[in-house]
This record gives sequence, C-alpha cells and structure tokens, in this order.
Amino acid sequence: MTSTTAELGNLRIALIGYSFMGSIHAQAWTTAPRFFDLGVVPVLAAVCGRDKEAARSFADKFGIGRVETDWRTLVNDPDIDAVDICVPGNLHAEIAIAALQAGKHVLCEKPLANTLAEAEKMTLAAEEAKAHGALAMVGFSYRRTPALAYAKELVRDGRLGSIRHIRASYLQDWIVDEDFPLVWRLEKDKAGSGALGDIGAHILDLAQYVTGHRLAGISALTETFVKTRRLAGASSGLQAQPAPGGNGGTKGGRATVTVDDAAVVIGRTAEGALATFEATRFATGRKNAIRLEVNGSLGSVAFDFEDLNELWFHDHTDPAESAGFRRILVTEPNHPYAGAWWPPGHGLGYDHAFVHQAADFARSIARGEQPEPSFAEGLQIQRLLDAAETSAANNAQWQDVTAGA
Amino acid sequence: MTSTTAELGNLRIALIGYSFMGSIHAQAWTTAPRFFDLGVVPVLAAVCGRDKEAARSFADKFGIGRVETDWRTLVNDPDIDAVDICVPGNLHAEIAIAALQAGKHVLCEKPLANTLAEAEKMTLAAEEAKAHGALAMVGFSYRRTPALAYAKELVRDGRLGSIRHIRASYLQDWIVDEDFPLVWRLEKDKAGSGALGDIGAHILDLAQYVTGHRLAGISALTETFVKTRRLAGASSGLQAQPAPGGNGGTKGGRATVTVDDAAVVIGRTAEGALATFEATRFATGRKNAIRLEVNGSLGSVAFDFEDLNELWFHDHTDPAESAGFRRILVTEPNHPYAGAWWPPGHGLGYDHAFVHQAADFARSIARGEQPEPSFAEGLQIQRLLDAAETSAANNAQWQDVTAGA
Amino acid sequence: MTSTTAELGNLRIALIGYSFMGSIHAQAWTTAPRFFDLGVVPVLAAVCGRDKEAARSFADKFGIGRVETDWRTLVNDPDIDAVDICVPGNLHAEIAIAALQAGKHVLCEKPLANTLAEAEKMTLAAEEAKAHGALAMVGFSYRRTPALAYAKELVRDGRLGSIRHIRASYLQDWIVDEDFPLVWRLEKDKAGSGALGDIGAHILDLAQYVTGHRLAGISALTETFVKTRRLAGASSGLQAQPAPGGNGGTKGGRATVTVDDAAVVIGRTAEGALATFEATRFATGRKNAIRLEVNGSLGSVAFDFEDLNELWFHDHTDPAESAGFRRILVTEPNHPYAGAWWPPGHGLGYDHAFVHQAADFARSIARGEQPEPSFAEGLQIQRLLDAAETSAANNAQWQDVTAGA
Amino acid sequence: MTSTTAELGNLRIALIGYSFMGSIHAQAWTTAPRFFDLGVVPVLAAVCGRDKEAARSFADKFGIGRVETDWRTLVNDPDIDAVDICVPGNLHAEIAIAALQAGKHVLCEKPLANTLAEAEKMTLAAEEAKAHGALAMVGFSYRRTPALAYAKELVRDGRLGSIRHIRASYLQDWIVDEDFPLVWRLEKDKAGSGALGDIGAHILDLAQYVTGHRLAGISALTETFVKTRRLAGASSGLQAQPAPGGNGGTKGGRATVTVDDAAVVIGRTAEGALATFEATRFATGRKNAIRLEVNGSLGSVAFDFEDLNELWFHDHTDPAESAGFRRILVTEPNHPYAGAWWPPGHGLGYDHAFVHQAADFARSIARGEQPEPSFAEGLQIQRLLDAAETSAANNAQWQDVTAGA
Repeated sequence: MTSTTAELGNLRIALIGYSFMGSIHAQAWTTAPRFFDLGVVPVLAAVCGRDKEAARSFADKFGIGRVETDWRTLVNDPDIDAVDICVPGNLHAEIAIAALQAGKHVLCEKPLANTLAEAEKMTLAAEEAKAHGALAMVGFSYRRTPALAYAKELVRDGRLGSIRHIRASYLQDWIVDEDFPLVWRLEKDKAGSGALGDIGAHILDLAQYVTGHRLAGISALTETFVKTRRLAGASSGLQAQPAPGGNGGTKGGRATVTVDDAAVVIGRTAEGALATFEATRFATGRKNAIRLEVNGSLGSVAFDFEDLNELWFHDHTDPAESAGFRRILVTEPNHPYAGAWWPPGHGLGYDHAFVHQAADFARSIARGEQPEPSFAEGLQIQRLLDAAETSAANNAQWQDVTAGA
Repeated sequence: MTSTTAELGNLRIALIGYSFMGSIHAQAWTTAPRFFDLGVVPVLAAVCGRDKEAARSFADKFGIGRVETDWRTLVNDPDIDAVDICVPGNLHAEIAIAALQAGKHVLCEKPLANTLAEAEKMTLAAEEAKAHGALAMVGFSYRRTPALAYAKELVRDGRLGSIRHIRASYLQDWIVDEDFPLVWRLEKDKAGSGALGDIGAHILDLAQYVTGHRLAGISALTETFVKTRRLAGASSGLQAQPAPGGNGGTKGGRATVTVDDAAVVIGRTAEGALATFEATRFATGRKNAIRLEVNGSLGSVAFDFEDLNELWFHDHTDPAESAGFRRILVTEPNHPYAGAWWPPGHGLGYDHAFVHQAADFARSIARGEQPEPSFAEGLQIQRLLDAAETSAANNAQWQDVTAGA
Repeated sequence: MTSTTAELGNLRIALIGYSFMGSIHAQAWTTAPRFFDLGVVPVLAAVCGRDKEAARSFADKFGIGRVETDWRTLVNDPDIDAVDICVPGNLHAEIAIAALQAGKHVLCEKPLANTLAEAEKMTLAAEEAKAHGALAMVGFSYRRTPALAYAKELVRDGRLGSIRHIRASYLQDWIVDEDFPLVWRLEKDKAGSGALGDIGAHILDLAQYVTGHRLAGISALTETFVKTRRLAGASSGLQAQPAPGGNGGTKGGRATVTVDDAAVVIGRTAEGALATFEATRFATGRKNAIRLEVNGSLGSVAFDFEDLNELWFHDHTDPAESAGFRRILVTEPNHPYAGAWWPPGHGLGYDHAFVHQAADFARSIARGEQPEPSFAEGLQIQRLLDAAETSAANNAQWQDVTAGA
Repeated sequence: MTSTTAELGNLRIALIGYSFMGSIHAQAWTTAPRFFDLGVVPVLAAVCGRDKEAARSFADKFGIGRVETDWRTLVNDPDIDAVDICVPGNLHAEIAIAALQAGKHVLCEKPLANTLAEAEKMTLAAEEAKAHGALAMVGFSYRRTPALAYAKELVRDGRLGSIRHIRASYLQDWIVDEDFPLVWRLEKDKAGSGALGDIGAHILDLAQYVTGHRLAGISALTETFVKTRRLAGASSGLQAQPAPGGNGGTKGGRATVTVDDAAVVIGRTAEGALATFEATRFATGRKNAIRLEVNGSLGSVAFDFEDLNELWFHDHTDPAESAGFRRILVTEPNHPYAGAWWPPGHGLGYDHAFVHQAADFARSIARGEQPEPSFAEGLQIQRLLDAAETSAANNAQWQDVTAGA
C-alpha cells in the first residue's frame, strides 16, 4: 500500500547550479514523488547561482522559494537536509566536503572531482559523514536508464555466463566544427579533462556497473584534434548560457584547448575480461551514442543510448538456428523502474533516469542506507581516469589500477 | 525575451479523470511552463474522479488542491478556466458540451466521441463556444512527437514532392492472451470501438496531419479474434486500476467482446495518394509500434514510435549512389519542440508529447487562437472511423468520406 | 555419401531468354551442382533469343554450346530434357504448353501467365504432362531465400501458434521519375499487369507459402500515378538492354501507361487471418523491400529483403521481460539451404535463391516428384491477381476467391 | 564494347587447396568472366590437394580437368600461368616463393604468412618476379565488398574531410563453446596466430584501405580464454573436413591452445587519427561482424558485414536538422562492382567479393599491372600483426611501426 505523502517527512534540498544539469535535477526532484514511493517528500528548498536574476527566474519555474548566490549559506543552513551539486567539477570537492561536514546528505554530479587528490578527500569526507548519518552519492545517472539496469540484472542472474568482453564507447560530435568556441568543458582548470572525464567516466562506470567486473589495468591514448579555439564572450557548458565558473568577459582571440578531444583505452578486468573504451566529441554524426556490448560464455547484451529504450540480448543457450540478438523494449512492468511509468512500448527519455536517481537517493536517505554509487565508487572511476591520463602521457604505458585506497 | 511567470495570468484547469491519461496530463501541465514560454500559467486547480480517496491520493501527488466526484460541479465553477477530459469516450460528449456551454476551454482526449452523432454535437458546441471565446481541442498527442512534427515540416517544405503513398499501422499485443480480461476498452458501450477507435484513430490523424492530405474514401475489414473474455472483478483500461465508468462489481464468467481486435483499411486521398492503415492489438511482440511511411516523388519519411526520437528521411534528389534513408535523431535545437529540452542525442519519451500538447493548448488560449487539432478535425476522424465500421460490416464495401459538416 | 557427378545422368536444359532473368538462371544452373547433391547433372544445352549475336555472346559466357532464335526448335528437340522460360509473361503460355506437350520438364518464371485463362490452360497442360512424366514448376524464387524458408519452418513447427495477421509489401522505386521510359514491364500486352503481377505476385505467394493459409477473399485498389511515358528507342525490362518482345524501333513521343504503378489489397484467409498487401514501384528510396510480417498467438516473424539474411522472430512464450524480436542470421548449418554454403554470418545474395530453385527443381526431376510451386499454385496466385484487378476496377468491391479449378 | 571471349587469351590457374577457401575461389574463377570483362579468360586448369580422391571430387564439381597432390608439380608446369594459394598460412611462403620464381602469377590468401620473416621473403620474391612479369597479390577479399569499396571512394572524394577516428572490430563466436576441438586454426604452427592474424588482419587492412591512413604505432592486448581444448580426430578449419596440414590421426585428450582467442588494439595513424581494433572469436551471438566506422571532420561512414549490402554515411555538411546516417544500399549501377550484377536492392553475398577479387586479379594480369593489394601491402599488415604480438607479450607496450622494408 502506498503511503500518503501527508504522512511523510520532507527532504529539503538545496540545488547548487541551475543550467543544463540543474534544470534536469530540478525536474527530477519534483517528478520522482509522483511516480515512486520514496518514504520521504523531496522539497526543492533553495537554488544557488552566481547570477541572482537568472537563478530567480529558474526558481520561479520550478517553484523554488529561495535563491542564494553563495553556496556556503545553504550548506550551513539547518533548514537544508541535502545538497545537490550541479556545477563544474572544479567546485565539487569544496562544496561537497563542506556540505558533508555540515551534516548534509550530498548528491554530486559526475565525475566526482577534477583530480584524484580531490576525489580522495571527498571520499574520506563521505566516510566520516556517514558515521554521523550524512550520506553521499555520485550522479552516474545513466545507471538508471532501465535498459542498462536490466542489463545488470541479466548479468547478475547468470544469463551471460563468464564475461569475456566489454566493449564501450561514448560518441558525440558537438565540437567537430573548428569554429566551436572554448567553453568551460574545454578548459582543464574547470573541467579536469575533456571527453575522458566528461563522458569516458560514464562508460567506465557503466561497464563496471553492468558486469560487476573491476578494471585491473589499462593502456590509453588521448588526442586533441583542434589545438586552439576562439574565446567565447561567455563560455558555458554545452550551450551558450552563462554558467557558474565560466570565463565570462574574455572576448576575441584564440586560446589553447587544454583538455583531450578523445580518448581510447584497452584494459583487463580483475575477473579476466578484455575491455575497450572510447570517448570522443569528434564522432561526426553521433550525438549521444553511449554504446555498451558485453559478451559472455552464455550470452551477450548490447545497448546504444541513441535508442535508449532498447536492450539487445543474445541467449547463447537457444538452439543456434533460432538464436539471435533480441530487441527487448525495456518498458515492461517487471523491468527496472519501468513499471512506475507508462504501458509497454511507451518509451522513456533521457530525463527519466534522473527521476530514478532522485528516487533512489531519496529512498536511501529515508531508509538510512548508503545510496549507490557511493563516493568510493566515484573515486575508483577517478583512479581509472587518472591512470588513463598517465598512460596517455607516456605513450600508452600500461597502468595497473588497484581498487583499494 | 522570456516573460517572468509572475507577470502572467493563470489558466485554472480542472482535470476529469486520474488514471493513465489523467496522470500523464497532470505531469504535462506542471512540466510545460518550466520548459516552454506559454503566455499563461497553467494551474491544476482540481481533479475529478468517482473514487474520492483515490482521487485525493492523486491530487496530493500532483499538488492539486481540490478534489471532486461530480464533474458538473467543476464545469460550472467560475474558478475554473479550462476542462481537461481524460475519461472513457462514452463520457466525452456530455462533459465537453457542458463545459463549452459554460464557457470553459476544453481539451478532450481522443477519439473525440464514441459515435458520429456525438462528435457532430460536440463540434457544433465547440463552434458556438468559440464565438464566445471558449476554445476546444482534441488530444491527438502523437502529433507533438518531435519526429512526427518534423515529418510534417519536411512535407510542408516540399521535400517529399507529390505524395503517392501513405502506409500506417499501429501495432500492439496486449490482449493476445485469450485469458486477458474484458476491460472497458473491450466494451463497445464505453469504448465505442476497439483497436479501430483507440489506436486506429491516431494513425488516421497522423497520416492526414503529416501529409496534409484528406482521405476521400476507404474500404475496411475488422475482426475480433477472441470472441469472449472472462469478466474482470473491476475492469479498467490497460491495467488493473478501477476507472471511471468501469463495470466494477461483475465477477466470474465470460462475456462477448463487443469491439474489434483489429482493423485493416485501404483508401484514397482527395489529393491522389493510396493509403493503407492497420490497427491491431494482436501483433505479437509489437508493443506500441506506430508506424508511418510516406512516399513522395522527391522523397520519403518513415517513423516507428518504438524508436520515437528517430525520423527516417530519404531525399530522392540526392545522387542515387549516395542516397538512402537517413536516421535523423530529432533532438536538434531547430527541431520542433526539441530545443526546449536537452542537448542533441538526449532523447525524449512518450510523455514529452503531452507536455508539448499542454504547451500548445495553453499558448493558443493565451493568444485567443484556435488550438489544433480542433473538434472539427476530431469529427473528420470520427467520420473515417464510422466509414470504416460501415465498410467492415458490409464486406469491405467502399465508403466515400466527405470532409464537410 | 555424395555421389560422384560422373555416375549421374544429365538434365539437358534449354534456356529461353537471356536478359536479367536468363543470366541469373544460367548462373544458377552451373552453380547448383557444385554445392548441392542433385541426383542429376544439369547441363545448359542451349539458349534461345531473338537476337542471335547477343544470344551467342551470352552462350559464350555461360559455356552454352547451342544458340537458337526460335524456341519451337528447342521445345521439340529430343536432346532437350527441360525448358526454362525466362521471357515476358505474354509468351509463357505458348512456350510452356508446347514444351509440356512435347514431354519436356518446364520451369517457368512468374507470374505464371498474363491472364487467368492462360494460367488455366497451362495448369491443365501441366496436369496432363505429369501423367507422362513431365513436371512443371513456376519460379517464385524468393521462397528459396533461406530466411523465408526458415520462417515457413517456424510456422510449420507451431512456433507462431494461430496466425492472426499477414502484413506484406513489396516496395520499389525504379519508375518514380516521370521521365523513365515506357519499358515492356509497363505495357499490359506484354507484362499483363504492373506492380500487381510483377511484384505483388511474389508477396501473395510468399504470404501463403510461409503461413500455409489461403486467401479467401480480397478487396483492392490500384493506381497509375504517371499516366503517360515517353517511348523508348528499345524498351526492355528493368534496364536498357533489348529484350525479346520489346517494342524496338518506336522512337520519340509519349504513350499511355497501360498497367498499374501500385496496388493495395486487404483480405481474409480461409483460416481466419487478416491480410494486407501492397505492391508499388513508387516507394521512393525503397529498392527491393519485400517485407513480410506474420503475427500469431505464440509468436511473430518479420522479414525485409533489403536485409535478406535476417529473419526476425519473436517468441511470445518467452517471459515478457526478456522477450523481443530476435535478429536471426539465417546462415547456420541447420537453416534451409544455408549449410551448403559458407560459415555462419557469411551472408548470401539475391542470386543464391535461384541456385536453390535450380537445385530443388533438378532434385524433383531426378526423383520423379512434383516440384513446388506447381503450376496449380501459380494458377491460384493468378486467381488472386485477377480478383485484385476486378476489385480495383470496381471501387474495391469484395471478391471471393476459391481455391478450386 | 565487350570483347568476345573467343578473342581472348587464357589464364591457366592452379588452385592449391580445395576446402572452404578453395571452393569459394573456384566458384569465383568460373563466375568472374560471366559478369565482368577481364581481358583474359581464367581457366581452372588444376587443383592440388593431399587427399587425391577428395581433390578429384572437388575437381569434378568445378569442371577442373587435372588433380595433383604435390604443388611443386604445378608450380613448375609450363601449362600453368597462375597459382592461387588457399592452404593454411604455414605453407604460403614456400609455395608462393617457388611459384614466383618459376614465373607464375600468384594470388595468395591472407594473412600473407605466419611470420614477419616469411612475409619479408615473399615480398622480396614478388618484387624480383615483377621484374620478370610475374605479378603477386594477397587476398584481402573484403576490400571488394561493394559497400567497403564505396566507403573508400567517399573518403577519396573528400566526403569525410580530415579523418579523426577509425573504429574497427571483427567479431565471431565459433569457439565460445569450451568443447569445441583444437582445429588447425587454433594451432600456432599452422595458423601463425589466432583471431589476431585470421580476422584481425582483415580489419587492419580494411581500415587502412578505406582511409588511406597507415598505422604508425600500436598498443595491444591478447587473451586465450580457453586454455586447452580437446584434440579432434582430424582437425580442420572452421568445419570438420580434413585440411592440408591438419593433425590427422591424433585422437582423444586435450592440448594447449597456442594462439590468441581475442586481441584488442589501440593506435595512431601517421596522418593523425586515433584507431581501435578488436578481433575475437568469443563475441557470443556475433557471427561475422566486421564493423568499421570512420569519423572525419566532414562526415562518417559505418559498416557491418552482417548487413553487407549497406553502407551508412553521415554527411556533416547537411543542415543539422536533416542530417543523419544514411543507409545506402550499395547496389546501384554506379557503385563499385554492383553494376555488373542485379538491379538495385537485389543484394550480393559473401562470395561475390571473391568474384570481384578474381576479376581484378585477372584484369591486372591482362594489363600487366600490379594488382592490389600487393605482397608489400600484405607485409605491412604482417608488421602490424607482429607489433601487436610483441606489444601483447609486453603488457601492451607501445610499438612504433614503420612502413619501410
């Protein structure tokens, strides 16, 4: 039986950042309790942004009553229960650690941090906070795409047998044009890395999430195809809105691109599989192609985010003549998350995974359980990103990656 | 420039019905103003349902302050500006006409009515109401799927040339199992017809919407493959929740299915194209496959809702050796509706079309313009459904269909 | 154990016609014995064509020792065992009947004839000849595409349960251009009909072949979108080579197109399924899209010749969450015909079905068994084509179709 | 104008090997002159195999008059013009060098050799022989798949702009089963390497062929998932027929697999692209998935051999809203090789590429021109395979690869 929302306590959330990620998180917080039982009522209590007017306009749209320009105010406010960090990576560590130390639950966008050192500090802070009841989670939202969550279930249930191959790529093309400006995502001091950290982080996480394997070592190459780019009047993330931490004000001229445009990685998992990864913003014609194929001794799964409601599953125990990759529409009542939504065949979108993320986070808070993925998992991804950068800087030199601290 | 919401007037909406369609409409009303400039602020002022407790639980989820069990109360309430009708078709005419006569704007789910006579009365009521400033629209939501809206743009811009073929099907499989119960959608007195009116109406509308053609005559066959079904304790729509107008209380036994399971139609448009339509709930393995292909002298488009973010476009003016159907991800900023959402490649879901519908309806109200599709358009679809039933009842006898009143 | 070819008798074949169909048949006759055990050795003994020089060039290429310009010479020659008819439909009846009466086995290209009356005479001749050991077959080659033959096996084995829907289309676009000339396939006196008989015949046959159902009645519309076409200097079939029976010599001007450009059909099978068919040469961007989908109570199959090595199979007895259309590459050793060729995944082409057809024909001859499809089956297709023409000429009037003579 | 075959000289070919590759080559030699103008008439003059009876049966099927069991006899026979080598890699060098030294033209299956040293000797022999008019070619047949040849044309014509990414994989699954026996392809002394040389060689060649780039350095990992396999009574290639060089006679027991099951490679081209390669026989459900995607600044192409008649092309100069990967059916008259065959949409199979290879080889011989790919190109692939093995044996250590001798 469904609890009525009236009986539940509130989870008062402060949203830090209001651009692309901010709006999708805000939409998720308001939508989650309508379709999922959470055990708590998320309330968007405040939003924080440097540009107060823009932040207020955002707040009006999402019914948020309070606007701040300094995140410290919110992090230390007793009326806030949780902090949701949607700003560029260079700000993650400072905000997250302060929030955790102030006893707030934290949901932090990926990648966890811009450097391994930051990620380690954040993980330590999360572990200390947990002892006091404050819980932290990193936002690898794609895990909550039903097709990928179902892929994990198939692996977990042994339907793939022993996994031999992981084949992952994340292909975009939004900076192919040499005239595209130097937005913050192309600046190392703000973004940490380029395609590697922004989108490579997702496929490293997804590969490990779906298979349960952990990468034991990797070899990588990176490339920056377009070496300099024109400075934008006010750079931002994907589009042209001003963002917190943007280099607003600089005009004209070109500057060096300080992050990678693309990264390719080969590796081995501790469990014995071979893995390949490719993250690029130069795959002309591919818009958001997160592709994951896993081959095991008993079966395989394949996924492409450009058809996000589909999972392809090959059951190798079928007779050879009637075997083949099945196009499963992951919209059945028994599929992860799908039962909360529409009838079979009525697909979900990109944003629904954020609703699932918000729901899972809120439920974990309500139950006092560690939400997944934890900062420790985010740290492990950071180790992989760090190893990839080191390898790429040393002619693809092999890097062992240990799971431990 | 975006107006701030504070400056805008409210559009106070009464939602009639709270099951599958009700929830997706409610979600749309709250989401639309966050992503689209509407010129008015939609406010879900009240919800109406026979089961007050269930309706209240629904109202709590969507932040609706008022719950009623008699729609007449809302239709006549001066605090209500618009009525959104999400109940089975047998109730459409009475509610819509009363609301329009009371000066309310009306958004009515499709098909417009269960009979041609009802649809004609509703259209007449809409025309009279319009003279007094009350506007009516029928909810063929799929028109607002970006890929289909973009298909229409391609046709409008002449990219397809003279249209020769329309090939549409709507394939589902949710009642293939002979043990599936007799829900209200399988009862003629509530649903009007079966696959024909429920899903066939959508493809008739989409075909005409995308091409701008109007069917001039048709020939049809229908079939009810499973002649009797077990009575459910409380039948409902697609799933097992009680619905307004359900035959709650009947238990055990089997009864005759009074609607079609499937319909096939061939026809000609007034503009000279050949058209085929198929609507079925017995296409095993097809969940919500709304397929539309249009072939013209200069190009073709093809769509399948199971991959709703894609439109396939063949440009026949390309050299033969480099021509082929292009898989366009309809997620670019210039695509209909898409610019309001996420970056390219980050697909939308089934529900987003309802947000677009709500946005378009609200904008039309704000501007005092007739929203599309009008009740007159809904009536023309009703004529086609009626012609199909007559043809099917007479061995596929040809039926001319006139557009006039 | 494989017989050595040396031990086998010869099957001396006279090929009538040497253009597109002639070359593919010639290639098939020489290839079949290399990959299939036939029980007889097919020998291309002679080719017949009106243009002796062109025929001789053809004969040289395929190692055919004898060239004739009058088919009567070959039909009456004791050194010929079988006659393979690859000329336009207006010549089928005369040649086939003469050959059968002369005691030759006959393989005749489809459609069997240009008129129902001719088809009936041919079938009668085949039945009489059979009593004397001469066997006749009509060349619905697509049946021998492994994916379609495998679809039939799945139906035969009950994997689809009770069949509810047949959905077939054959889409081409080679005459979309209004400037395409009036080739013989667009002249009723030579081709019998247009898209209906040329390609519609194939999907009518395939639908019945795969399902085992027989159409009991149909309703049809046809259309000729381009009413007149320019006369070609020497018209031919698909391409520009002169063909037997072409209207060589006519130059300049335009003439009326006397066949249909497209046909759409709805029908019922005697076994209770609904069926739709569409044959067109105006589906811009579709080159040879033979599509067949069959939905049954337990499963479905779907096929598109543009991906000829794939069959899509949905097994509805799978649990809903892991069910979906499987893309079966029909290249496994146990698949029909496939074991004779390459390893799995090494696809076959259009022409391989003709090799299979030649092999099956030769094997039937060797065993003295009736090859399938017989002329009687070809006649039944002719009845359907005739019914479609009658229906289309009478505003889609329903036509019952009986299977009997 | 087409030459009549009577006017042309013969090219008398000795085929060495008669199993899978032998039969496809034999079929190609007899088919090529029927569909292509070659300037010479290929005649299959002899076949060589260790098992004389099996070879004779093969010879009978393909109309080959002469059977030998010692290839030396043929290599030194003045009645032979060309030698076609279709035996395992360990025999390539000896036969090819002897044939070239005897003045024969040579077509040698890929990979060129089992070791770099052998490949170098073969290339030297080819260069010396060329001075005397004997020409050598290595059989990377997939180059002649029309879709891949057309991809090369698009790159050559600048349609892709500056190439940034090469993404290639060759996925099979025929040895996933641990009970699959130790066939010769799994023995290093016969096959040279495993997936790397057998199928990895193809994608290395295709990637360079299509793009015109040359790999400048690589890093690789290999893995043998199943370490031991049961000994077969008589091992062979893909299937169970005895092959020249098989370990016939050994029975029972298990032995160590001495080749890789899979290889993954990352690299850079001299021209500045990043490249990834994966070759595996453990991609469950993938039968012969040769996938190649190339991304450039102006466009991209993508190919999968499991749909061999399709090339996907994205033209990035199209407006964003109407851009997308086009599914080009590479069956148009202007497409490479396709015009010689059937009308558009009538797809080709795996074997047709061997017909094209035979045709191109014969034409080059007729014109006295170097056929492509030369042994030097085969050697360059061998260098890459060698570098991959070295890298894999040294923890993915980077290997520079130079193009020179």
